[in-house]
Amino acid sequence: MRRAKKTNAVRRSNCAVACTLDIIGDRWTLLIVRDLLLGPRYFDDFLKSPEGIATNILSARLSALCEQSLVEKTPDPSDRRRHTYQLSDRGRRLGKLVGAIAAWGVTNLPGTKIMSGLDPNRK
Amino acid sequence: MRRAKKTNAVRRSNCAVACTLDIIGDRWTLLIVRDLLLGPRYFDDFLKSPEGIATNILSARLSALCEQSLVEKTPDPSDRRRHTYQLSDRGRRLGKLVGAIAAWGVTNLPGTKIMSGLDPNRK
Repeated sequence: MRRAKKTNAVRRSNCAVACTLDIIGDRWTLLIVRDLLLGPRYFDDFLKSPEGIATNILSARLSALCEQSLVEKTPDPSDRRRHTYQLSDRGRRLGKLVGAIAAWGVTNLPGTKIMSGLDPNRK
Repeated sequence: MRRAKKTNAVRRSNCAVACTLDIIGDRWTLLIVRDLLLGPRYFDDFLKSPEGIATNILSARLSALCEQSLVEKTPDPSDRRRHTYQLSDRGRRLGKLVGAIAAWGVTNLPGTKIMSGLDPNRK
């Protein structure tokens, strides 16, 4: 009940586009989701992506994704001091959206390409 | 040639997702596109949308969209002191992307709805 109230309080409207952008409407969040669509990741793995995300931005965006139940953070079975990040079912459904963004980009922005393993026609 | 150089200079990578987010990765740009998918708009029309965009943000985002050739600004034939904004062909192709965002939102964010006239299955 409290959760629903909190969510409504920060909504700009009840438009599905606006509410989704409240979660993923920035330059970094969907790049983290893009990386996670290829499989679970350690924190350091994201830092190796070519865009060069800063650690404080990565940390903030991963926390927000976990709060939204889009990403799950779990201790690594082989080293419990480390954590792995993976998409929840809800987060994995962002794949279609990331695919639509990739498809628009590769069609309309010359010189761009779709990262290996990413399916722009994902359902 | 100069334009291509400029574009490459600000790209974070050649990933189609990253380059698209460099253009539309914020909380407002795709709400402007959402409104334009329903037809041409005057500047003041955007201010009536329920999210309450501020005039300075609207002005900056519209300018950026025009610079990217996603939106066309033309004098209104009935009053040439006013301008209308409409999507270019390239901008209209963002409709599928906005549709994917709307579809994710309405499925995964309780209490949200798809704005009347917006087609989440747009091709």
